[in-house]
Amino acid sequence: MLVNCVAYREGHKLADIPVSAISDHLSQPGCFVWVALRDSDQREMALMQEEFGLHDLAIEDALHGHQRPKIEEYGHTLYVVLHLVEFSPTDDLQVGEVNVFVGPNFVLSVRNRSTLGFLGVRERCEREPELLRQGSGFVLYALMDAVVDRYFPIVDALETELETIEGQIFHRGAGRSNIERLYELKHKVTALRHAVSPLVDGAGKLHGGRVPAVCAASGDYFRDISDHLARLQTSIDTIRDTIGTAIQVNLSMVTIEESEVTKRLAAWAGIFAVATFFVGVWGMNFEHMPELKWPWGYPLALGLIASTCGVMWWRFRRAGWL
Amino acid sequence: MLVNCVAYREGHKLADIPVSAISDHLSQPGCFVWVALRDSDQREMALMQEEFGLHDLAIEDALHGHQRPKIEEYGHTLYVVLHLVEFSPTDDLQVGEVNVFVGPNFVLSVRNRSTLGFLGVRERCEREPELLRQGSGFVLYALMDAVVDRYFPIVDALETELETIEGQIFHRGAGRSNIERLYELKHKVTALRHAVSPLVDGAGKLHGGRVPAVCAASGDYFRDISDHLARLQTSIDTIRDTIGTAIQVNLSMVTIEESEVTKRLAAWAGIFAVATFFVGVWGMNFEHMPELKWPWGYPLALGLIASTCGVMWWRFRRAGWL
Amino acid sequence: MLVNCVAYREGHKLADIPVSAISDHLSQPGCFVWVALRDSDQREMALMQEEFGLHDLAIEDALHGHQRPKIEEYGHTLYVVLHLVEFSPTDDLQVGEVNVFVGPNFVLSVRNRSTLGFLGVRERCEREPELLRQGSGFVLYALMDAVVDRYFPIVDALETELETIEGQIFHRGAGRSNIERLYELKHKVTALRHAVSPLVDGAGKLHGGRVPAVCAASGDYFRDISDHLARLQTSIDTIRDTIGTAIQVNLSMVTIEESEVTKRLAAWAGIFAVATFFVGVWGMNFEHMPELKWPWGYPLALGLIASTCGVMWWRFRRAGWL
Amino acid sequence: MLVNCVAYREGHKLADIPVSAISDHLSQPGCFVWVALRDSDQREMALMQEEFGLHDLAIEDALHGHQRPKIEEYGHTLYVVLHLVEFSPTDDLQVGEVNVFVGPNFVLSVRNRSTLGFLGVRERCEREPELLRQGSGFVLYALMDAVVDRYFPIVDALETELETIEGQIFHRGAGRSNIERLYELKHKVTALRHAVSPLVDGAGKLHGGRVPAVCAASGDYFRDISDHLARLQTSIDTIRDTIGTAIQVNLSMVTIEESEVTKRLAAWAGIFAVATFFVGVWGMNFEHMPELKWPWGYPLALGLIASTCGVMWWRFRRAGWL
Amino acid sequence: MLVNCVAYREGHKLADIPVSAISDHLSQPGCFVWVALRDSDQREMALMQEEFGLHDLAIEDALHGHQRPKIEEYGHTLYVVLHLVEFSPTDDLQVGEVNVFVGPNFVLSVRNRSTLGFLGVRERCEREPELLRQGSGFVLYALMDAVVDRYFPIVDALETELETIEGQIFHRGAGRSNIERLYELKHKVTALRHAVSPLVDGAGKLHGGRVPAVCAASGDYFRDISDHLARLQTSIDTIRDTIGTAIQVNLSMVTIEESEVTKRLAAWAGIFAVATFFVGVWGMNFEHMPELKWPWGYPLALGLIASTCGVMWWRFRRAGWL
Repeated sequence: MLVNCVAYREGHKLADIPVSAISDHLSQPGCFVWVALRDSDQREMALMQEEFGLHDLAIEDALHGHQRPKIEEYGHTLYVVLHLVEFSPTDDLQVGEVNVFVGPNFVLSVRNRSTLGFLGVRERCEREPELLRQGSGFVLYALMDAVVDRYFPIVDALETELETIEGQIFHRGAGRSNIERLYELKHKVTALRHAVSPLVDGAGKLHGGRVPAVCAASGDYFRDISDHLARLQTSIDTIRDTIGTAIQVNLSMVTIEESEVTKRLAAWAGIFAVATFFVGVWGMNFEHMPELKWPWGYPLALGLIASTCGVMWWRFRRAGWL
Repeated sequence: MLVNCVAYREGHKLADIPVSAISDHLSQPGCFVWVALRDSDQREMALMQEEFGLHDLAIEDALHGHQRPKIEEYGHTLYVVLHLVEFSPTDDLQVGEVNVFVGPNFVLSVRNRSTLGFLGVRERCEREPELLRQGSGFVLYALMDAVVDRYFPIVDALETELETIEGQIFHRGAGRSNIERLYELKHKVTALRHAVSPLVDGAGKLHGGRVPAVCAASGDYFRDISDHLARLQTSIDTIRDTIGTAIQVNLSMVTIEESEVTKRLAAWAGIFAVATFFVGVWGMNFEHMPELKWPWGYPLALGLIASTCGVMWWRFRRAGWL
Repeated sequence: MLVNCVAYREGHKLADIPVSAISDHLSQPGCFVWVALRDSDQREMALMQEEFGLHDLAIEDALHGHQRPKIEEYGHTLYVVLHLVEFSPTDDLQVGEVNVFVGPNFVLSVRNRSTLGFLGVRERCEREPELLRQGSGFVLYALMDAVVDRYFPIVDALETELETIEGQIFHRGAGRSNIERLYELKHKVTALRHAVSPLVDGAGKLHGGRVPAVCAASGDYFRDISDHLARLQTSIDTIRDTIGTAIQVNLSMVTIEESEVTKRLAAWAGIFAVATFFVGVWGMNFEHMPELKWPWGYPLALGLIASTCGVMWWRFRRAGWL
Repeated sequence: MLVNCVAYREGHKLADIPVSAISDHLSQPGCFVWVALRDSDQREMALMQEEFGLHDLAIEDALHGHQRPKIEEYGHTLYVVLHLVEFSPTDDLQVGEVNVFVGPNFVLSVRNRSTLGFLGVRERCEREPELLRQGSGFVLYALMDAVVDRYFPIVDALETELETIEGQIFHRGAGRSNIERLYELKHKVTALRHAVSPLVDGAGKLHGGRVPAVCAASGDYFRDISDHLARLQTSIDTIRDTIGTAIQVNLSMVTIEESEVTKRLAAWAGIFAVATFFVGVWGMNFEHMPELKWPWGYPLALGLIASTCGVMWWRFRRAGWL
Repeated sequence: MLVNCVAYREGHKLADIPVSAISDHLSQPGCFVWVALRDSDQREMALMQEEFGLHDLAIEDALHGHQRPKIEEYGHTLYVVLHLVEFSPTDDLQVGEVNVFVGPNFVLSVRNRSTLGFLGVRERCEREPELLRQGSGFVLYALMDAVVDRYFPIVDALETELETIEGQIFHRGAGRSNIERLYELKHKVTALRHAVSPLVDGAGKLHGGRVPAVCAASGDYFRDISDHLARLQTSIDTIRDTIGTAIQVNLSMVTIEESEVTKRLAAWAGIFAVATFFVGVWGMNFEHMPELKWPWGYPLALGLIASTCGVMWWRFRRAGWL
């Protein structure tokens, strides 16, 4: 589905143009066309392929979807796949894609399975004609920057979730829910890592050293994206590492808790074993058990039992078992 | 066993030819021969070695089998080993091999220990003569592409299996079966990784930089395979990593479960220890135990025991031990 | 907020100058200006950007804060971000930043969210004019050196904390507090690692090989910083590794402790089970139990029970269970 | 101890020669000498050093023994150390060494602490004069190939051992013997890895890129060895990885087993606690306990106890605790 | 403190010279001076700095101490820091340092906090004038070789310690002492690794490729050191890896032991629960319990209890629980 199709010259918007007028503008010097599609079907992509002369393999990838993020050169055209990550209403991570084709005089972006649009990007670009004059490479930067900037709040949300779990990790009895939440968090982090990691390498090839021609004018800007990606990567690695430690620590806490329960069990079992032994003694049927005839025998017996158990209780208490 | 042997010129099929006519076609310019064998024996391989001038070491590897996947140059000839992975009827992974020899004017593929054929590949190639015109390098691409594409459903099956296990990982009492299934899954993933990992490096040498001559015309296509392999590699690494975490989590769950059982055991042991102590008290043989003579002594005693135990039960319940 | 603004020529201080006089001094040969700001706002940064011709992206990063440490070249200007790490009053690690812009004839340092100042650095530089003559690159060295040197006492504090925990790791009953302290320590080490790790790579680019022009004269000095960073990195890695092992060892100790408790529980349970069985025997109501009539039956019975339990106690003791 | 000493020309054996005749043959063009020693002493090595002009450091290493596998160039001479790994009669791994010195016109192999000889290698070489014509480099290949080929049955034996353990890992009660066998297996794998890993790098320098002169003619053959080593490396890494997982899984199984025992213990303890409570009730000495006088009181009581316990048993059974 | 100060020409000792005569000898061609200091103070170092023209930063490092091992070039001078590792009387590892400054015509070694001297090195060098003729680079080799050779017995001691622990890892009841010893061993290995690891990289730069001028003549010798360091590194990595596995295995053994104790506890608890139940039955006060009146009732009851418990004992025994 066509979102919009605009021609630019010298950084300024010329006009919204129909798809049929694309080829006219492509041939004009200093002019480039920026087309945005959404959830495109095969017919639409075939049309675009013809207009911009795109490579079969790139079109196939874009139609098939579920690519990993990547930056590939086909002749003078760059083919960029980025993951769009957002929280679904049920708080899961939902991963869509945007495919961007960038040639010297065109940008084609195809967004799939995502509610996140790029209208804001286009508006911002049009407000800064002196930057947009850098050409289609700057549009690629603006799109990548928008996508990468949207990863930060997600990393923040995952860090917050991790901190919440950490706040409960030393609480008694929270072992089961902690481990479930850590496992789920690990899945989310993995999804985000798949969006970020492959880009770190890819974006590194858009500045410094040999750079695709369309990106040459915007080197500092692509380095800025690389830097953001490196920051994300660090945060993600830290979360992953911390999850690993947290799972270990949680297991330790569960074991410690069990050990505490075992101690309490042992202490109470000991106290009652002694008491039961005493009452058993005076339940024996020997004929000559003088204390059974004492008038104060019964209360004395109860008192003896109570005080013995009391002493045991006090000693277990002092040892930290109770 | 010979599957088929066909000569091509300019991307079009000339004819099915007998093995004896191979050398005639090899000498014609713009012409190449594509031979497919299956489960070959030594005699057949010796014949092929003579026809195509293959290197001793490559032939030895192909006959010996059980090679790791690799891409080797012997002069102008490429020797490629790929693993064919498929599910056996008993749901295990079965690993076969295909050995491909590619020279400027021939392709020889030898498939061993696998039910997966390549007839579809040949048909698809013959339907696209404009691509097949790229020569024997394109045939190599088509074969590799077919092999690599067959890894995806297997990765999907393993991911599904992993998700099934994950669905049970927080269930009580599933610890033993989970760990068995995770261990088996790990084995399968390892088999698949052995098929994919060595190829990631190998395939990277068929595009960009210095490239074997026969592959030079199909660089973009081999990069596409590299990209697929990288995707597979990512999926496999994620499965491996998740299995590792799942084993840890499963251990945590078993420990948590044991801790819960210990708590219940402790609670019930405590309740009955108290009850047994009480009945022991009134089983003592002291002469002066006035309550034994009360008409309502017995029901009162039972009531006292029941209510004490009830209070304990309620407190254990509130503490989450029961 | 302006801290100070000084012009230097040939390594000697010329004068404290107002901001408005900066551009006059920048145009004088052999002269450079060193401006120090603190917790700057947007207006102030805009002024500086104009004076020194700084890049938009660098200014944006400096204003936004929370960057990872990095060293970036924008044309002839170096943009350096360093973390300032200090202990807060509550013994947590507090991370601030200093942004340094270094051009051929100026140094601008902006310190954010930190109580650590750089007055000492300026004084030391002014005392060594023969070194300060190397120009703005040497000022960058002096600032980096001051920041990096402040990491050492923090690493020492973390090592001391780790040793304190280690001293208790084989103590009985310290499992819970150890694991909490190890987890907290891990967080602190991670914060410090984020300050140090990215710099190791970055600082490596300021000596040897191709070096930014402003640093060329001070290569040996920047190598010294690299060496300090490598030392810090080694210490941090060792602490991290040791924490990992300590968590494992702590879990082992908890399990060993639990195993000892279980053994004691088993031993006492056994002893009392035997005693309770004996008293139960003589509590049976059979008519023909001759020992019940013996005059010394009761003391004999108690003696038998006591000696049996004594033997058991002694054997458990010998086996190390009690 | 001298094993044999033979001169070759153009790939054909000239004659067995005495050590004193070596220098004569070294000076003849197209001729090379192949000397094999076993468990040499200092005197013999000194003689060889003089004959072939070997470097002090290499001789020192060869005499000292216990080197890691390596391939070093001393001028035009290659010094190669390989580990000879074999099973001892007690099923341990025994590691010997072979030191090979290869010059343009000589090969000297010194085998230490191993029962594995190289007579077969010499015979095979002499049967293929067209290959042996490649010179001393081919002899090095043949020796390395023989050594590396002998690693395969050992890897196979270790894999078989691992599979045997895996077959028992889910058996109840095998935890202790499994862990002992896994630990021992780990030691064997480590020994083999020390033989293989350093060679992977070393052998990679004997083909492709810059290659020592004596190996230049046999590049494809050395690549074949590299390939075998890579295969071994993969197998070894897989075994190591699987051992790691198996140790974890074994721990999980032990914990699961313990948890099952705890459940059973809890169930039986519960059943007997109830029964003991009941008999305690009717052991109380209250005067007014009407059921004690019922003629059928005793059997009814036993029946009540039996049926209560039966119900409990059945419910525990259904819950999988018994 | 000055140990000695000697001038050499053409590999032969000229004379012990006073410090004041150093500069005279430095100016003579083909002559070099070798000064050895011990636990130097600032004054002495300042003197040496003046004599040999050493760099401020190197002197600062040497005075400050606690450097990591490193090899740095300052102009034509090499600055080398090596760790001296030895066992203290209490069997801890004690780490000292030697700082070596090597210029074209001088060697200055400063040994700090260590009892290990280098007199033997000097004597050995003076006995081999043909090697010492290589100049100051050879002296550096001789010093490094001596330091590195002293690491081997320490690695051997650590391996022996590890084997001792391993010999006890499958013993019952040794869990606590094993884990303590493993943890202490890990600390020692870490100290040794800090001495060796940084040198592996550093020494690699003294042979092959671009090499500092003073080392150029002794390339083969420095490669020999690299080889020794690689051997040490392998041993250290293996010890570390084995410690990790041993900690895991030890935890498994403790868990297995606990599981065995739990089984025994369960078995005995079961046997006594049954016995106690039986005596409780005949302790009930029902009027109509005919067996109580049987003359042989009591012995029969005891016999029944004994035989029931016997059968249980035998079955538990057979199941391996007792």
